[in-house]
Amino acid sequence: MNISIIGATGYSGVELIRLLQNHPTAKIKSLFASSQAGLDLTEVYPHLTNIEQHTLEELDVEKTAEWVFLATPSGVSAKLVPSLLEAGRKVIDLSGDFRLPKETYESWYNKETANESDLQKAVYGLPEWFKEQIQNAQLIANPGCYPTAAALGLAPAMPYIDPKSIIIDAKSGVSGAGRSASLATHYGEVNENFAAYRVANHQHTPEIEQTLQRVSEQQPLITFTPHLAPMTRGILCTMYATITEEVDFQEVYKAAYEGKPFIRLRAEGSYPRTKEVSGSNYCDIAVHVDPRTNRLIVISVIDNVVKGAAGQAIQNMNIMAGLDETTGLTFSPLYP
Amino acid sequence: MNISIIGATGYSGVELIRLLQNHPTAKIKSLFASSQAGLDLTEVYPHLTNIEQHTLEELDVEKTAEWVFLATPSGVSAKLVPSLLEAGRKVIDLSGDFRLPKETYESWYNKETANESDLQKAVYGLPEWFKEQIQNAQLIANPGCYPTAAALGLAPAMPYIDPKSIIIDAKSGVSGAGRSASLATHYGEVNENFAAYRVANHQHTPEIEQTLQRVSEQQPLITFTPHLAPMTRGILCTMYATITEEVDFQEVYKAAYEGKPFIRLRAEGSYPRTKEVSGSNYCDIAVHVDPRTNRLIVISVIDNVVKGAAGQAIQNMNIMAGLDETTGLTFSPLYP
Amino acid sequence: MNISIIGATGYSGVELIRLLQNHPTAKIKSLFASSQAGLDLTEVYPHLTNIEQHTLEELDVEKTAEWVFLATPSGVSAKLVPSLLEAGRKVIDLSGDFRLPKETYESWYNKETANESDLQKAVYGLPEWFKEQIQNAQLIANPGCYPTAAALGLAPAMPYIDPKSIIIDAKSGVSGAGRSASLATHYGEVNENFAAYRVANHQHTPEIEQTLQRVSEQQPLITFTPHLAPMTRGILCTMYATITEEVDFQEVYKAAYEGKPFIRLRAEGSYPRTKEVSGSNYCDIAVHVDPRTNRLIVISVIDNVVKGAAGQAIQNMNIMAGLDETTGLTFSPLYP
Amino acid sequence: MNISIIGATGYSGVELIRLLQNHPTAKIKSLFASSQAGLDLTEVYPHLTNIEQHTLEELDVEKTAEWVFLATPSGVSAKLVPSLLEAGRKVIDLSGDFRLPKETYESWYNKETANESDLQKAVYGLPEWFKEQIQNAQLIANPGCYPTAAALGLAPAMPYIDPKSIIIDAKSGVSGAGRSASLATHYGEVNENFAAYRVANHQHTPEIEQTLQRVSEQQPLITFTPHLAPMTRGILCTMYATITEEVDFQEVYKAAYEGKPFIRLRAEGSYPRTKEVSGSNYCDIAVHVDPRTNRLIVISVIDNVVKGAAGQAIQNMNIMAGLDETTGLTFSPLYP
Repeated sequence: MNISIIGATGYSGVELIRLLQNHPTAKIKSLFASSQAGLDLTEVYPHLTNIEQHTLEELDVEKTAEWVFLATPSGVSAKLVPSLLEAGRKVIDLSGDFRLPKETYESWYNKETANESDLQKAVYGLPEWFKEQIQNAQLIANPGCYPTAAALGLAPAMPYIDPKSIIIDAKSGVSGAGRSASLATHYGEVNENFAAYRVANHQHTPEIEQTLQRVSEQQPLITFTPHLAPMTRGILCTMYATITEEVDFQEVYKAAYEGKPFIRLRAEGSYPRTKEVSGSNYCDIAVHVDPRTNRLIVISVIDNVVKGAAGQAIQNMNIMAGLDETTGLTFSPLYP
Repeated sequence: MNISIIGATGYSGVELIRLLQNHPTAKIKSLFASSQAGLDLTEVYPHLTNIEQHTLEELDVEKTAEWVFLATPSGVSAKLVPSLLEAGRKVIDLSGDFRLPKETYESWYNKETANESDLQKAVYGLPEWFKEQIQNAQLIANPGCYPTAAALGLAPAMPYIDPKSIIIDAKSGVSGAGRSASLATHYGEVNENFAAYRVANHQHTPEIEQTLQRVSEQQPLITFTPHLAPMTRGILCTMYATITEEVDFQEVYKAAYEGKPFIRLRAEGSYPRTKEVSGSNYCDIAVHVDPRTNRLIVISVIDNVVKGAAGQAIQNMNIMAGLDETTGLTFSPLYP
Repeated sequence: MNISIIGATGYSGVELIRLLQNHPTAKIKSLFASSQAGLDLTEVYPHLTNIEQHTLEELDVEKTAEWVFLATPSGVSAKLVPSLLEAGRKVIDLSGDFRLPKETYESWYNKETANESDLQKAVYGLPEWFKEQIQNAQLIANPGCYPTAAALGLAPAMPYIDPKSIIIDAKSGVSGAGRSASLATHYGEVNENFAAYRVANHQHTPEIEQTLQRVSEQQPLITFTPHLAPMTRGILCTMYATITEEVDFQEVYKAAYEGKPFIRLRAEGSYPRTKEVSGSNYCDIAVHVDPRTNRLIVISVIDNVVKGAAGQAIQNMNIMAGLDETTGLTFSPLYP
Repeated sequence: MNISIIGATGYSGVELIRLLQNHPTAKIKSLFASSQAGLDLTEVYPHLTNIEQHTLEELDVEKTAEWVFLATPSGVSAKLVPSLLEAGRKVIDLSGDFRLPKETYESWYNKETANESDLQKAVYGLPEWFKEQIQNAQLIANPGCYPTAAALGLAPAMPYIDPKSIIIDAKSGVSGAGRSASLATHYGEVNENFAAYRVANHQHTPEIEQTLQRVSEQQPLITFTPHLAPMTRGILCTMYATITEEVDFQEVYKAAYEGKPFIRLRAEGSYPRTKEVSGSNYCDIAVHVDPRTNRLIVISVIDNVVKGAAGQAIQNMNIMAGLDETTGLTFSPLYP
């Protein structure tokens, strides 16, 4: 399996490179990074010295390999994907461009996306819930980091909670903001600091609602609040919903995630921590029931760069290729 | 004003020492720290070299000065306060022992507290809401760190929100756990990590409910979730409630906090960050309204060691002493 | 005393604002920040809300107050200072432009500086060693952060060590790089990371040599290595030199720094830590003698933004104004 | 290859578990951790959920597998190793007990170690320099973290530098202090802080000298200063020595490390950073020559838990077993 990565030098791109090192049958054939074309990869990322030798290239669709990962800012893949599909490539898009209906996308992202017919070719790549569609897809819309953690954490509970009562309070490490230098990612501004951002208007809101709606009979209306935590990797979602039917939630989740290798349902009432999945493709989930307030409280954690981006993309590639979905992804988190 | 601190070498104790340095009329007379009695203060805290010269002492009520701050673990002040009151001291207790009715305390803290008559002598020291009672108190129950941030953030909104819909998602720096060494405060376990703890059973829950009930006609039932963030200082509360009456919340808050020197109401829709109050006694608050879900979202930030503990204690002392409440507390946050 | 700050929105500028809040006789009259002129200060730094109300201005020498602090990048004050001096201002320049002879500056900074006659008006503002000259100065070249920590740490030992054997291994927090966004200050690149930079060619090298030469009969030749540590504030210098005369170094240092209020000579063989001076104007120093290798090892720590920049600048202002040098600077470090 | 780990729940032990997951022929058979015997491994380390299922056991030499890793505090393996050797086990000791001559050990560690005859069975496991002896060893003294980074960084230069001029200024992440809770590893004390410790008397000093002596004709006398940096993983050594013979150091290092898969000689004058080897078994090295002072300055970085402990231990195991030394260790560092 020959691989090309477009947008190879962002944090998702370089994580794809790290993970593909570990993959038994995939091999990186070309790395595209327009702003750094001509440089050696190790000039940009010295940690890859002696590991991956590539010259970064200007994008040329004809030079892409059979499998193409797009790790580009929103708006880019909307333009590139049509020609990649036409050229017969299997495409996994890590951006948000193909995840939402056209109108929803454009109202939350404030930019144009692809046309309807291309959007309809895309399969939403959350393997724990849509594996069958993924198997036959040519184009994957790889889920966002927050939507992965949130939807995996809430989906099993949907039949038993009030879908209008859902509140998702999410905390992310700084790598989620990408590698571009800005005041928002300046060490002096982020270290020893904690902040919310984009309250009530983050573009991942409709993506979470869409997924929760697809996996249930329910039409959710959620409040989603992202926060920036002073750490590099990790997302923790704390999710609240009013219980409408008293069930054994631990059993409900166990049933939902049986045979899903990357979901680790932790003991009821326990506290998964972001570091416990760091560097890995796992999503750890724990349910809590508060009888005093009749609320379900779910905690889910992922590594935003792995299960929230590059790792899930490879999991999707494995499924599309007919491989075991864990191929190349069965390693321990890095702890401490 | 002569001051004694009992429990002087914990993080709240040493912050009292820092802040009292800055106070024009208060002077530390004695520092008690039983486990370290006999040591010089600067052996425990070298950063106070040339600043504060004291030998740490074994507690002796007779040796306490007129003003006594108790910065001791829960359960200690319940035992000490009666004799301090009897000796005529003015007492500010930073622990939880005198904040709640006996039964409530004992069911949430799982230990005994003082008897009813002593409890009734205590005034809850949240100056922005209970300044008059504080003026005449001999014993102050200084609020908890989370309850300070949460109650200040929600109190003005109470008449216009559903009191059963309140969810408080709180994030705290590690100093809130005190200076005792444990796996929970080990750098390798906390750094690059994020976790929830004590979901649905944290002892600050009834304290928050009690305050919100006192400042309104409402009986709230809250879900309160504390989290540990990889930083030393700071609490950020993200608070959610369903709006029952559409009002101009910015105006409501402005009216509520006019003339309250330590509340900085920030622009509607803005994002106060913990570092913006670090080292200071300010509580910064911003309101957000989400028309899509009809929810009010309030963000409040404090420095847990200052407004959440030592700073508020001095603010209370000022009020009890008839001083301007800002005396010794008007300095800028440390940024960056 | 009316104050103007040019370059008010960098980290040194905003620290001047914080510290001047605390000063009994100084008052900020105008803040200049060309790139942000027209903005309110609190739009750039919300932590100053309700503390300091100023509109940022375009620089105009005529609008400057009697006392001018220049907190600008290297090369700027070389151009501004002549007109400020002509206008009769007392000037404290936090940049490197007036610290070195013209030729030395231009060879290490790779840019032009002021002309010789202006350079000769400048007094090097290290009060512990040059207080008399500072008292009569109109223009102060405020020392660099590394040179402050290094020179204070080594100066007393100079007569008893080999001046060609000196090695200074320095570690700094990220705030030393300023507030400009760049890959070098990006959280994802700095957090959980440690690196050296500018080995053998950092522009503070000749400044350290010059100071050590001035305070002794010795002509030092030093190796100076700066490093970037994953923290916001603080510099620690570990300094090595071969002992040429066996003396009681603790006594030598005690004698040298008697009556210097911001030097805290710690016990011989002890370990000052950066956090123990954080937010304060102290420089803590400890000497170690290694008889096995006949080396003196000195550790010094400062807060790079305070004693390494804004705090020392105010200390210089106090001396120039005939005030006690500690005026407005006698507060405790922030710990933890 | 069946593996037992004694001291399985310290940071080196759990890193062995992580790395052995990745090893194609090694399999963990038993994990010993006396203080936590009876617990499931995932109760102590939830990040290993679904990855490694083991009950922690009380140590019993008879139950150990053919390959035994000792990840125990100093003093323990001195007592255990004799019976393990007698039982025919292949032993890799990660502690310092078998690294030094008896007298040297006891004077620097202040405790007793094994007897001479057992000590002489041990081979010092620094594969880049002693691979042949390792191939035939039954007992490996796995090098210390600092000695690995320091010796690898200086060894090639030894013939061309003054061996009495060597100064090693080392900076380590907190994981080097192990998982035991103490004030020294408390987050509030370590975060935003930087400190030296054990100046001129750290027990790794003679280990570094011994290795440098073995690889050259030179008898070094070094000053070694360890520091604690606010990060979890990583060691960076900055090393200084006076040049005695002008050679092309880049070529010298290239020749020395040709064919050594875990040494990545970086470009002359470059700046390896700890994060660039994080989670990996690489040691990155860069040389700098300062003609002004005639000094060689070498920078080396490792992950203290991998190349400084568990990774090097597995590298040694591979060599002892006749496998390629990189088996199971060829993965990319985790970046960012």
